[in-house]
Amino acid sequence: MASTSPGYGITIRVDGPASAQPVSEITQAILAAGAAITALDVVESVLDRVVIDVTCDAIDAEHAEAITAALSANKNLNVRKVSDRTFLLHLGGKIEIASKVPLKTRDDLSRAYTPGVARISQAIAKDPSDLRRLTIKRNTVAVVTDGSAVLGLGNIGPGAALPVMEGKAALFKRFADVDAWPVCLDTQDVDEIVRTVQIIAPVYGGINLEDISAPRCFEIEARLRNLLDIPVFHDDQHGTAIVVLAALTNALKLVKKDLKSTKIVLSGVGAAGTAVARLLVAKGAQNIIGFDKDGLVFEDKGAEDPMRKWFVTNCSPGSFRGDIHAAMKDADVFIGVSAPNVLTENDVKSMAKGAIVFALANPDPEIDPALARKHAAVVATGRSDQPNQINNVLAFPGIFRGLLDAHITKITDNMLVLAADAIASCVSDQQLNANFIVPSVFDLNVVQKVAAAVKKSV
Amino acid sequence: MASTSPGYGITIRVDGPASAQPVSEITQAILAAGAAITALDVVESVLDRVVIDVTCDAIDAEHAEAITAALSANKNLNVRKVSDRTFLLHLGGKIEIASKVPLKTRDDLSRAYTPGVARISQAIAKDPSDLRRLTIKRNTVAVVTDGSAVLGLGNIGPGAALPVMEGKAALFKRFADVDAWPVCLDTQDVDEIVRTVQIIAPVYGGINLEDISAPRCFEIEARLRNLLDIPVFHDDQHGTAIVVLAALTNALKLVKKDLKSTKIVLSGVGAAGTAVARLLVAKGAQNIIGFDKDGLVFEDKGAEDPMRKWFVTNCSPGSFRGDIHAAMKDADVFIGVSAPNVLTENDVKSMAKGAIVFALANPDPEIDPALARKHAAVVATGRSDQPNQINNVLAFPGIFRGLLDAHITKITDNMLVLAADAIASCVSDQQLNANFIVPSVFDLNVVQKVAAAVKKSV
Repeated sequence: MASTSPGYGITIRVDGPASAQPVSEITQAILAAGAAITALDVVESVLDRVVIDVTCDAIDAEHAEAITAALSANKNLNVRKVSDRTFLLHLGGKIEIASKVPLKTRDDLSRAYTPGVARISQAIAKDPSDLRRLTIKRNTVAVVTDGSAVLGLGNIGPGAALPVMEGKAALFKRFADVDAWPVCLDTQDVDEIVRTVQIIAPVYGGINLEDISAPRCFEIEARLRNLLDIPVFHDDQHGTAIVVLAALTNALKLVKKDLKSTKIVLSGVGAAGTAVARLLVAKGAQNIIGFDKDGLVFEDKGAEDPMRKWFVTNCSPGSFRGDIHAAMKDADVFIGVSAPNVLTENDVKSMAKGAIVFALANPDPEIDPALARKHAAVVATGRSDQPNQINNVLAFPGIFRGLLDAHITKITDNMLVLAADAIASCVSDQQLNANFIVPSVFDLNVVQKVAAAVKKSV
Repeated sequence: MASTSPGYGITIRVDGPASAQPVSEITQAILAAGAAITALDVVESVLDRVVIDVTCDAIDAEHAEAITAALSANKNLNVRKVSDRTFLLHLGGKIEIASKVPLKTRDDLSRAYTPGVARISQAIAKDPSDLRRLTIKRNTVAVVTDGSAVLGLGNIGPGAALPVMEGKAALFKRFADVDAWPVCLDTQDVDEIVRTVQIIAPVYGGINLEDISAPRCFEIEARLRNLLDIPVFHDDQHGTAIVVLAALTNALKLVKKDLKSTKIVLSGVGAAGTAVARLLVAKGAQNIIGFDKDGLVFEDKGAEDPMRKWFVTNCSPGSFRGDIHAAMKDADVFIGVSAPNVLTENDVKSMAKGAIVFALANPDPEIDPALARKHAAVVATGRSDQPNQINNVLAFPGIFRGLLDAHITKITDNMLVLAADAIASCVSDQQLNANFIVPSVFDLNVVQKVAAAVKKSV
């Protein structure tokens, strides 16, 4: 699984004597260090020395250092500077505010600010329904986190979560022209989180909860859905579930199986796993067997975790009490939203014919997809360097575009199922194959179709 | 005081038969109705009919209706549509988010989002001081209100305040390239306001409090200044005070008087008035007599209002117990941050020679500036249609530009005085006259000089 990634891209400024063919020396050294060059520019040629910027992707931070060392070791080369492309990109943050109105003259100020703006405020004070028409509430979503479950990094807190939330906001704008703002809360108390979101809600047309750990995320979402008159959507739950359902719908079509009669093994029964199960059950699945790090999930945990109660009621393993390897025998579908190294090659080999494996743990899946592909009919992961990337970006932009445009206040499971169908429908029958079960995130149809499905669902 | 304003601008679409000279008819009707035409476009000419868009400023909403009625009354004209320019400008809000990073390819996503962004989050988790370097905290300010004291409208709440906060954010960006985000709080409880701002603080490099009523604003600012490691600035207090001090510095220069020896009458001892007094005292003023709607301010109100205690201690009227008209006799300076119709023409007439009158109540000043100008040497208001506009826009952009760039955590009175000096210095000796005591808000030097003064103050 050791492939280079643009996420670890570096740009190295190197100089060397022209006579020593530095471009050639650089290229050879980098290839020998196991990296791929993505760009090379001669930036300067002074007397006998040539200055070159070479950009390459590395596997990880250590590899990046090894590449730099390989260049330094070359007697003919002098490493001047190493710039990490990802870090450079992040200097000062990734989003900014822009004014939509002209502010060039005194007259402009009189309309956008005092005294003209006072009339707008008066209009809203008189008729609060004008708030959506005359302010950013029409198009704006809060991306809310407490930093307690960020990507694969765990509980890193609100500050460290901010770059992820900025990225989310940039994606909202890029894909669906939705304005999104990062709200990183310096508290992990559920009551404080709920009350704070309620207090800041006037500005927003929707709330996207992000990277909040289970089981707290279930209570937070449920309470906010009760309190607010704007939609509340925890993307780690429902976004993942929607895209998984879309991918599964297309994969089952390929292998000509019916969801109702499939045996599904689910690894991971936290936020994402529970939401996946809920949506599959809503779509008709009847045989889901769940595992978490403590093994088979068949007992509830009492009042502290109502979602676990739902799961053991609706996804009961019956009398089965084996481990995941036993469950995988003759399973039609494996869905992993858990951790690396959960499955062996034999597990996949023991599945039913036409097996579907979604190994979605990030960054390292439950099984090496190359191994899974030797035995399964369809394999998907969350990785961008593999085919069939199960990426939430396929769902949340279109979901909120639809919610905002149709002024929807409550989200239903039916809406999520229709959104999944819309994503699946972006892959035509001609396009559908084992390596193409979900559309590209850059497919312009996706947002439109998902938004239309959301609007139609009410 | 009945002048037209772009804040009440309307665009009327009118058609009429070409033979009847509709442009001329329109122009005459509008002039007769007492409005000023700012634009006229023939948008269409079909057969014998001409369609014209005419834009004009009105005095207020009633006047706008009167203008439209004047056109409708003309037999040769047909009014098709009336568009309120200010309302049109506000549809969907006045600000939006923009991505600063490219998001065109999978590689772009890998750097701006997963997996690349995980390394940025890890770096911040390891070293929290990297938060300012690698996120929007470097350049972003929260504009925080509870909507309890919005412009001249009073307690209209967080939703109705949002257009004003959006306008503020647009101004921050336009004048100082500071990213500002509206935070409108659906609570008026001081403890909740303080705790909420503390909870959302990780994202921001500074807090701008706005339109929060006195005396609550004093406690909120003081408590937040204690709790947060980012600067907290209530613009209605300090922004106003800074610009008043800058204007007064230049006006005193003109009339050749020294602040130490001037008698100053202050109308309005709320947020703005108290802050003005504090800054004048910091700069050396020794004789300030204050009035509010209950008359002379000479007694404190006990523990509920510590700022009032400061005021009666530092701005004591001595043994004087008269009303504002008595105080105005032989006063050198009048500063009003209160309400309309507080002064009479005789009050200004009874002031000392070289009198300075700052009548800043919005939208209607304490006295008609035309009347004041008959007797005072220098007159200023808060209105954009009068010379010497005391406009907070001269202060807050440069203040925060300096605070953010120099990573300042605490704001001092000395900093505010230096900022005021910087604004005053933007008016050269050659430019300084009774109608030009503060620079134009469009003077590009202002933000630079104010920011530099802030940075130098630490």
